[in-house]
Amino acid sequence: MFNGDKTSEGTNGEETIAAIATAPGEGGISVIRISGPAAFSIADALFIGQGAPPSQRRHGTFAFGRIRDQDHDLDEVLMLFMRGPRSYTGEDTVEIQGHGGSQCARRILRAVLRRNARLAEPGEFTKRAFLAGRIDLLQAEAVLDLIRARSERAAAAALDQMEGGLSASFAALYDDLVVVAASLEATLDFPEDELPAPYLDEIRSSLAKVQQAAEALLATWEEGHLLRDGAVAVISGRANVGKSTLLNALLGKDRAIVSAMPGTTRDTIEESLVLQGIPVRLVDTAGLRETDCEVEQEGIRRTQAHIEKADLHIHVIDVSHPLDEVEQARLQRLDPKRSILLLNKVDLGRAADLSGLPALRTIETSLISGQGLEAIKGVMAEMLAGHADLSSRPHATISERHRSILLAALDETRMAAGLLSAGGDEALVPACTHLRAALESLGQATGRVYHDELLKTIFSQFCIGK
Amino acid sequence: MFNGDKTSEGTNGEETIAAIATAPGEGGISVIRISGPAAFSIADALFIGQGAPPSQRRHGTFAFGRIRDQDHDLDEVLMLFMRGPRSYTGEDTVEIQGHGGSQCARRILRAVLRRNARLAEPGEFTKRAFLAGRIDLLQAEAVLDLIRARSERAAAAALDQMEGGLSASFAALYDDLVVVAASLEATLDFPEDELPAPYLDEIRSSLAKVQQAAEALLATWEEGHLLRDGAVAVISGRANVGKSTLLNALLGKDRAIVSAMPGTTRDTIEESLVLQGIPVRLVDTAGLRETDCEVEQEGIRRTQAHIEKADLHIHVIDVSHPLDEVEQARLQRLDPKRSILLLNKVDLGRAADLSGLPALRTIETSLISGQGLEAIKGVMAEMLAGHADLSSRPHATISERHRSILLAALDETRMAAGLLSAGGDEALVPACTHLRAALESLGQATGRVYHDELLKTIFSQFCIGK
Repeated sequence: MFNGDKTSEGTNGEETIAAIATAPGEGGISVIRISGPAAFSIADALFIGQGAPPSQRRHGTFAFGRIRDQDHDLDEVLMLFMRGPRSYTGEDTVEIQGHGGSQCARRILRAVLRRNARLAEPGEFTKRAFLAGRIDLLQAEAVLDLIRARSERAAAAALDQMEGGLSASFAALYDDLVVVAASLEATLDFPEDELPAPYLDEIRSSLAKVQQAAEALLATWEEGHLLRDGAVAVISGRANVGKSTLLNALLGKDRAIVSAMPGTTRDTIEESLVLQGIPVRLVDTAGLRETDCEVEQEGIRRTQAHIEKADLHIHVIDVSHPLDEVEQARLQRLDPKRSILLLNKVDLGRAADLSGLPALRTIETSLISGQGLEAIKGVMAEMLAGHADLSSRPHATISERHRSILLAALDETRMAAGLLSAGGDEALVPACTHLRAALESLGQATGRVYHDELLKTIFSQFCIGK
Repeated sequence: MFNGDKTSEGTNGEETIAAIATAPGEGGISVIRISGPAAFSIADALFIGQGAPPSQRRHGTFAFGRIRDQDHDLDEVLMLFMRGPRSYTGEDTVEIQGHGGSQCARRILRAVLRRNARLAEPGEFTKRAFLAGRIDLLQAEAVLDLIRARSERAAAAALDQMEGGLSASFAALYDDLVVVAASLEATLDFPEDELPAPYLDEIRSSLAKVQQAAEALLATWEEGHLLRDGAVAVISGRANVGKSTLLNALLGKDRAIVSAMPGTTRDTIEESLVLQGIPVRLVDTAGLRETDCEVEQEGIRRTQAHIEKADLHIHVIDVSHPLDEVEQARLQRLDPKRSILLLNKVDLGRAADLSGLPALRTIETSLISGQGLEAIKGVMAEMLAGHADLSSRPHATISERHRSILLAALDETRMAAGLLSAGGDEALVPACTHLRAALESLGQATGRVYHDELLKTIFSQFCIGK
């Protein structure tokens, strides 16, 4: 009874799906993927090459030829042949490797879709791999993480998860809890008042161990969040204090137009960099100044919204000028936990009165000459890393979804533990119910238990073609 | 003596090259290509999979496994094995198909480059295919055209060229001219005054036929130019006359911010669309108004520069308001051959005096309601198509490089023909020289004659990885 039931058919659909699997844009090669029962018949209809037609080719081979449709050649291609169940999806699969750019792959895809195939939904190839039992949900999610990875460390962590890093942890958690739950269920068969006390103690102790393991897994969330989502660092400050210069200096290139004309940066500018393996999205904002220009006022409203959501907030002031009341008030409102105050233009002297400030991380800089730049990067990385130990070897980390699952499961086990501690036979049945609920929750991590809505949520985040 | 000499070694280098061959960005799959003598030994060093190592695999097969370097897994991949001379480059080639996104392919490429390979130069795989004699220069150039193609027709024309469409025409031209030149050279052996007149007549007539064939090829340039480079259509007009509305209407989406505040479009906005197979780059410009804002003045200067270079110029006026002198003068300056004047806001009445205008294509529009949109597209396509017959089946067309070659060859043949018409034995030797120069020029089209500089010019336009 603890083996989760699949609430949706586990078999793959009978439909054949196709999509372009490479990124759009200019490149030498693009790949179209076709998976499903009609993959080889479609290939036979479109492929012109020497030797046997695709349907008579062996798994693990490829052939050179051209794609021909309606009396027109569409491209010269390599065609790869994979037989189910030895393909990614577990189904018959054909890959067409043609020329890159925007036209060839689209022309071929259209010809495929005119035959017995439909366009794949986002992540549908990977969903089929899951439904065929080739990978679990954690591994499927790792595919997306790997594609999305914005740093080496994030890619390495995703690969660890794809190779089963998290699956093993969740499976161990699940299996250990099954043993606890089964032991507890067994107590229900004891005649009243004859349950030996050591037996229940053992169950309590095993349950505590499961809880500890779950908490250890939970602790990987912070690093996982940083690696997956990256951190957002917002740069703010008055017009002309050097915000765009800071952005360019951090990126090491000229991205923002730097000029002495206040209000040059009207829209927010976003760029990415990697600090000690953490992808960071840098947002350079419109200068904070009182203005009657409608477009600029909108920009300043957006700046405030960005600051509120940021992981890091870098506020820049020109320390060579006195601070007026508006700016003084702004500094008082900075959140010490996530703000860095840059005292820029120190080379021009210090005229700003900084007495009475909250306990902020401050760095003296002269951005125009690069002074203070390394200090800024160091403090940023330090504040972002938080509890995550980024010096360790990259390892699989849990995502927001896994965190919810673990929190829900922990809640249930805690309620069960509470009931068992309180004692009394009447607590046994509800404790069993809580452990079953915990298992139900944990089962959703690997996909041992799943429902259509869960799959839809997970796979809709994928790109089409994976 | 008429067989062009290769002025550079025709053999491929001994170096092994590698590059990412798919477009950057988010996608399911990326491909790393390795070509050269060390391709298989590098594959052996990095590939972990079941069965034989890559170097013992057969041509035309692929294997599933993982890339492992310095004790770290880098990705799960398919590896394709191609043995020279049956590969694209004619050399031993290994392709690694890994996960898409920014990290995996780069990690794998770095691992490959740490071994016995260097990063490929742009187009170097295709250059090696040419040097190995697998394709000629016209076909190599078609690969680039195919990747760059921005419309179906452009892709089809490029494929025709890749499959030898132009190669055959240029080869015929070359071979026919060789016959003419050889016949002419033979006349030098005749004793003085004994050259039979019909013999020279025949040479003249054959030469005229070659010239006609060259001119027929030359006539494909206009279409080729439109298909390869696309046309540039610049939208201009006063602030607020509806330029951005026109852009959005042509594109069928909201790309430009449309607002009633003059000067909303500060930078030029570029978008692409396809009109009857011709890719068109639409440039929406800053509103032409007198302003003291420095940034806007710069925008207006840029508008003028864009207009001067454009294939098409769409000038929009608000016909519901009278035209002032500045605008009147602007209309007088419009170039009738490439300008379309839109009389917008006709639904609000006509207050503009349009008497005394030059003979311009004008279209009455109410862009806000879509009135006149189809007429605009029709007139644009008509003016762009010019002499090109876009209703024909797509076919290979010459590029700017081929045009220069044909023009140079034609020049030489015309000089030879002139000498032959003038008559006299003393004309024969210089006529031969001109025909040899014409052959030298024509030989550069297919690459029968080439030099390093020519190859550099051609292949430097490619992306890395092709």
